[in-house]
Amino acid sequence: MRVVLAYSGGLDTTTCIVWLKEKYQAEVITVTVDVGQEEDFEDVERRALKAGASQHYTIDAKEDFARGYIFPAIKMNALYEGSYPLSTALARPLIAEKVLRVAKKVGADAIAHGSTSKGNDQVRFDLTIRALDPDIKIITPARSWGMTRKDEIEYLRARGIEVPNVNKKYSVDDNLWGRSIEGGELDDPSHPPPEEAFKWTVSPEKAPDNPLTLEIEFSQGIPVAINGEKMDPVKLINTLNIIGGSHGVGRIDHIENRLVGFKSREVYEAPAATILIKAHEDLEKAVLTPRELRIKRMVEPIWSDLVYNGLWFEPARRAIEALGDEMNRWVTGSVGVRIYKGSVTVISRKSPYMIYSQNIASYDVGWYPSEEKAIGFIEIWGMHSLSALRVRRNAL
Amino acid sequence: MRVVLAYSGGLDTTTCIVWLKEKYQAEVITVTVDVGQEEDFEDVERRALKAGASQHYTIDAKEDFARGYIFPAIKMNALYEGSYPLSTALARPLIAEKVLRVAKKVGADAIAHGSTSKGNDQVRFDLTIRALDPDIKIITPARSWGMTRKDEIEYLRARGIEVPNVNKKYSVDDNLWGRSIEGGELDDPSHPPPEEAFKWTVSPEKAPDNPLTLEIEFSQGIPVAINGEKMDPVKLINTLNIIGGSHGVGRIDHIENRLVGFKSREVYEAPAATILIKAHEDLEKAVLTPRELRIKRMVEPIWSDLVYNGLWFEPARRAIEALGDEMNRWVTGSVGVRIYKGSVTVISRKSPYMIYSQNIASYDVGWYPSEEKAIGFIEIWGMHSLSALRVRRNAL
Amino acid sequence: MRVVLAYSGGLDTTTCIVWLKEKYQAEVITVTVDVGQEEDFEDVERRALKAGASQHYTIDAKEDFARGYIFPAIKMNALYEGSYPLSTALARPLIAEKVLRVAKKVGADAIAHGSTSKGNDQVRFDLTIRALDPDIKIITPARSWGMTRKDEIEYLRARGIEVPNVNKKYSVDDNLWGRSIEGGELDDPSHPPPEEAFKWTVSPEKAPDNPLTLEIEFSQGIPVAINGEKMDPVKLINTLNIIGGSHGVGRIDHIENRLVGFKSREVYEAPAATILIKAHEDLEKAVLTPRELRIKRMVEPIWSDLVYNGLWFEPARRAIEALGDEMNRWVTGSVGVRIYKGSVTVISRKSPYMIYSQNIASYDVGWYPSEEKAIGFIEIWGMHSLSALRVRRNAL
Amino acid sequence: MRVVLAYSGGLDTTTCIVWLKEKYQAEVITVTVDVGQEEDFEDVERRALKAGASQHYTIDAKEDFARGYIFPAIKMNALYEGSYPLSTALARPLIAEKVLRVAKKVGADAIAHGSTSKGNDQVRFDLTIRALDPDIKIITPARSWGMTRKDEIEYLRARGIEVPNVNKKYSVDDNLWGRSIEGGELDDPSHPPPEEAFKWTVSPEKAPDNPLTLEIEFSQGIPVAINGEKMDPVKLINTLNIIGGSHGVGRIDHIENRLVGFKSREVYEAPAATILIKAHEDLEKAVLTPRELRIKRMVEPIWSDLVYNGLWFEPARRAIEALGDEMNRWVTGSVGVRIYKGSVTVISRKSPYMIYSQNIASYDVGWYPSEEKAIGFIEIWGMHSLSALRVRRNAL
Repeated sequence: MRVVLAYSGGLDTTTCIVWLKEKYQAEVITVTVDVGQEEDFEDVERRALKAGASQHYTIDAKEDFARGYIFPAIKMNALYEGSYPLSTALARPLIAEKVLRVAKKVGADAIAHGSTSKGNDQVRFDLTIRALDPDIKIITPARSWGMTRKDEIEYLRARGIEVPNVNKKYSVDDNLWGRSIEGGELDDPSHPPPEEAFKWTVSPEKAPDNPLTLEIEFSQGIPVAINGEKMDPVKLINTLNIIGGSHGVGRIDHIENRLVGFKSREVYEAPAATILIKAHEDLEKAVLTPRELRIKRMVEPIWSDLVYNGLWFEPARRAIEALGDEMNRWVTGSVGVRIYKGSVTVISRKSPYMIYSQNIASYDVGWYPSEEKAIGFIEIWGMHSLSALRVRRNAL
Repeated sequence: MRVVLAYSGGLDTTTCIVWLKEKYQAEVITVTVDVGQEEDFEDVERRALKAGASQHYTIDAKEDFARGYIFPAIKMNALYEGSYPLSTALARPLIAEKVLRVAKKVGADAIAHGSTSKGNDQVRFDLTIRALDPDIKIITPARSWGMTRKDEIEYLRARGIEVPNVNKKYSVDDNLWGRSIEGGELDDPSHPPPEEAFKWTVSPEKAPDNPLTLEIEFSQGIPVAINGEKMDPVKLINTLNIIGGSHGVGRIDHIENRLVGFKSREVYEAPAATILIKAHEDLEKAVLTPRELRIKRMVEPIWSDLVYNGLWFEPARRAIEALGDEMNRWVTGSVGVRIYKGSVTVISRKSPYMIYSQNIASYDVGWYPSEEKAIGFIEIWGMHSLSALRVRRNAL
Repeated sequence: MRVVLAYSGGLDTTTCIVWLKEKYQAEVITVTVDVGQEEDFEDVERRALKAGASQHYTIDAKEDFARGYIFPAIKMNALYEGSYPLSTALARPLIAEKVLRVAKKVGADAIAHGSTSKGNDQVRFDLTIRALDPDIKIITPARSWGMTRKDEIEYLRARGIEVPNVNKKYSVDDNLWGRSIEGGELDDPSHPPPEEAFKWTVSPEKAPDNPLTLEIEFSQGIPVAINGEKMDPVKLINTLNIIGGSHGVGRIDHIENRLVGFKSREVYEAPAATILIKAHEDLEKAVLTPRELRIKRMVEPIWSDLVYNGLWFEPARRAIEALGDEMNRWVTGSVGVRIYKGSVTVISRKSPYMIYSQNIASYDVGWYPSEEKAIGFIEIWGMHSLSALRVRRNAL
Repeated sequence: MRVVLAYSGGLDTTTCIVWLKEKYQAEVITVTVDVGQEEDFEDVERRALKAGASQHYTIDAKEDFARGYIFPAIKMNALYEGSYPLSTALARPLIAEKVLRVAKKVGADAIAHGSTSKGNDQVRFDLTIRALDPDIKIITPARSWGMTRKDEIEYLRARGIEVPNVNKKYSVDDNLWGRSIEGGELDDPSHPPPEEAFKWTVSPEKAPDNPLTLEIEFSQGIPVAINGEKMDPVKLINTLNIIGGSHGVGRIDHIENRLVGFKSREVYEAPAATILIKAHEDLEKAVLTPRELRIKRMVEPIWSDLVYNGLWFEPARRAIEALGDEMNRWVTGSVGVRIYKGSVTVISRKSPYMIYSQNIASYDVGWYPSEEKAIGFIEIWGMHSLSALRVRRNAL
């Protein structure tokens, strides 16, 4: 039996290699998909092979991730429950696809991933794999073995396998779009997250004393340049993660509804996501009509829910994007943001499509409707509601 | 003819007194409603009488404003277009009601207000008056006289009337829930608002170097105490305005869609609103089910739109509140917020109704569904979508 | 072990009695809840006891069902996916509650129901029971035994138990609010349902040649009288089922999304539901403001989804009802409906709260705004959109 | 001055010709746009010229109307407030565009239409014209002259102009997509519309005694054939109007919220619209996922509102259509409908994209999840809600 395993290099998936070989006498081929996580990929490969993988693939999917997953998320101002920029949720379907591609190439009998039975990731992996291949066997060791982290460490030690360095306090996942931190002390939502939970962002209090102003340029809803310098997507996002993080920007702490039935306290670092979504949203307010804005804001959370809940492939996602793309055609221009001690403030916006006319808006020189016209508008505007009041009052 | 005029003490409404007397040979009775604006009400009265008012009423409506208008707005997390806490919009129907009450008391023939033909306020005043009294005559001098500010000043001078001190650069309105600043340089959305536009808030850069942590207590969606100290509504909001402002919290700058047909760049200071809505929203996420949250978030913007658009009296508002009140029964508890250099961060939340169980959520000690159950859930969860994919793929 | 079983008198639940006794050596107490199904309840009791139940309870819950479940559904115009009046879905939580009450009374160790693993009812029963009692054991024989209908018949015969008469062609469930028919030939959505599937309704072609006009009176959203005759809820609904059915009204045939992951073709007979919801909806259009209507129509399907999906107890349901109740205060009046050969047509509506004024609406005698006012309204109404067009056109 | 007038041939627009010439000394060029109304267009031309038009254009826009306006409406199941298929509302922007095109061609100084100040049509005409040409002068005689119908007749007679035959009882507008009847006795919503109001449809009681079954074929959301016969759009719609009408199908009677502030009782005949939308909606239920359906049903009424309210050109319309088009790619197949004595019943549906599997759905041979999987699904499905109940109960 040949199994292709989505391999992160961590404790869980390293244990998976050994377990799959023992339990299924399987040949295990590992795949690590580079979606921008901070990782020494050569070392990951070394660890995979030492743990018993017969082959290892490292796949650079950063550009795919940025263009095919992060950019659509920016266009939809995607913040799950108003807070979480979906970093992990967005990467899972891409990782599943890349791993599946290797599985097909090597003629694998099964595909494996290290998700547990209480997380959202199992849903995202399982369903994306099924969406792409209705038949391939899916093995999820960590969902069936019933081992705790401690058990896993012992399991590896007992077999003489090098135990990967693990963050002893937190369960961490990171990629280009954000870093999530769970577990340990964070499980108590009545206390602030301790400083040591953070890695990408300095504490706002330790951030520089001078604010930094950035000019972010968008073209049809997609960020293309910072301070006038065109950048490829990966570089642009990386740049904002570094700059934003150095100013304490992008810390997120909220109570989140997991698909699998319970609330959890989640902490994230996502400087680029925080800056880009804020800027994008602001630019939309300058170029979209009020009706466009309201409809888009109504469907945006549905998009985020689909992605969070493992339904990247659900066709409704594409339909919502079609609506959003139609509007994002006009989201072109530049937004000035000031980042300072943990906060991001939009301070200016420019666009050839800005539906704003100083001539109309200004009190000094602006357009004034005649009294009769204004009254005509107001009378008709309020008439339905006033008629209801009159009828209800009279009838009482 | 006896006219009751909503009088602010400023240039426009002072001119209204004179104009109403000249144009209609009216007896003008002025009413100033105290909704928390920074004003010397004795001086306002003096100005009214000197300009020719026959009587002046000052009505303290701060408590009414807080309980009857601001608290419902907090319960609905009311931010028009995601940004504006509706400070002026909320006060207008209350002012209209109080002024109308005087009009009835003194047997007035008409009610007057100083709104122009290009603002939202005319809609709010006209329609609330109509909702409460379908018949009384409404006079709006500034909508008909066609004078600029300069014209008004000359008009008063020519008649020997003292010209009120006016903010020469901006058009300002303030009350307990916020301060709005419009006009002048602000009309250009491609530049940040100048420091001099702000009065309630220091620049984040000039804010104290140490963050401040506040514990805000809510009871059924309503803020009742700060740091354990119970406060009446007005004091509580004032306190947060002062503390928040001193830390640079509550500056808002966005492009806003006015009801009357155009976008305008609007700048606000609203420290208390910023803090309270953020805290309230966070607490909701801890105590409401995901379904409750989604429904509430879907109708919240409709509430804000109604209020912004002058339809406080539209019965749909009460219906939305009925939905929100049902949920706010559980929004009881306390939220820790850290304010620092312009930002507000929720760092903790506690509630007897928190739907959060560390025993379930924790990866260490928590609940794990069996593999079979997890797979059962995922299969059924994704089944509709996967079936669609299969059918569509096969048919192509 | 003492088990209380929700007993319908049919094949599945009769088999459950025997199976529970054999498998668990349980004492089985049966409960049949009368929610208006066509049934000889004495015969049901006889069958239960003969099959081995130690005690049997028959509970008349028709009035509870009408007031506590059907009336809220009418107020929300509840049609799942625009078609299904939720007859079975509404009854399940009530049945669960009544059965659980017996379980508590007799000190049962477990509660049992006959749902299979592919229907919606298992969700409704399981979750309502859990909502009311987080701890009681739930046993669902038909979900675990793996018997087909044929197997069940043999199982009973082999044990000398009388096999209940079963509809050999269809799986049927009925109660006061409707009759659902599934299975057999109906599984093919490309053919019309055969006449023999129907029992409550005649074929439209066999209906009387003369239309019948009914005057239905509502008070605060609830039907209270027909043709001027006040009726208690159960009688009123029964009356409409009989009259409507005799005119071929209330046949429903659609493709339905089940919660458990697939589409099924469902056929219903629901004359009273069809008539009452149509009349209620029409009356709402006469008495609610356009804004009230739009908000209500937006949340109504969410209510239906919650009920269909087994979440009667989800607190969001009550919150949606709070919104709807606020509006239904005005849904008072009478609606004339004509029923004829399968169709229901509203032909008149009267209400003290009708927001309709012939003086305003009529072209002959009605109100006309001045040209200037009309133009003022139109200009401002279209201004945002027109400004967008201008900007976008110029920028291209 | 040269004015191009949208000319229907009726009393109002005939009077407009004369009035425009007298009032403005204008040269009046008339344009009649054929959108499928029942009209003798040669006679219309004759009337225009006799009334003083210098030139007359008759433009056949039926195909444009069907493809560019009706088909999008079918795709969006467009029924304003659940009832009105928007026949007139959809035609207005097309008529405005065609008339404007003539105006440009002949170098007109102004464009004129016959709308009054209390209808929706003035909004649709004015705004579409403005959307296409921000500058051309718009003249609306009937909004300014203050004449009643009787006045108009006298006005024409006094000038020796032939008075067009007018429907003395009702105000009627018709086109390919429907016929609307207003005014007269219909103004009283407490009485059914009299038979004489109808022209396209027989009374259901006078319809044939045998039902008729039609097979309607859709391709990507658009109707393309009836009973296997491919038809061009205009013929297909006409055919359904005739067949449907002969069976009494398509009468609509409801209370409608006009944009201009009041409710009116509106009666329509729209056989083709009634049949096609019912069939399209049913087919969607067979081929779309539950998530697609819910999102589409949520935005559909917004589309209808935009069109009804004169905002055909608002860019949000195109964005909603982009969402709908993405889904309509799969709305291909055929729907069997039975029309009988005023009712339309879908009796069968077939599609290569039907997400329906008898193998899964059937109780007999179908798929059954294991008990453990079913329970796993139900537990996780209900867990958020049950946790809330537990917490709230405990805290009380």
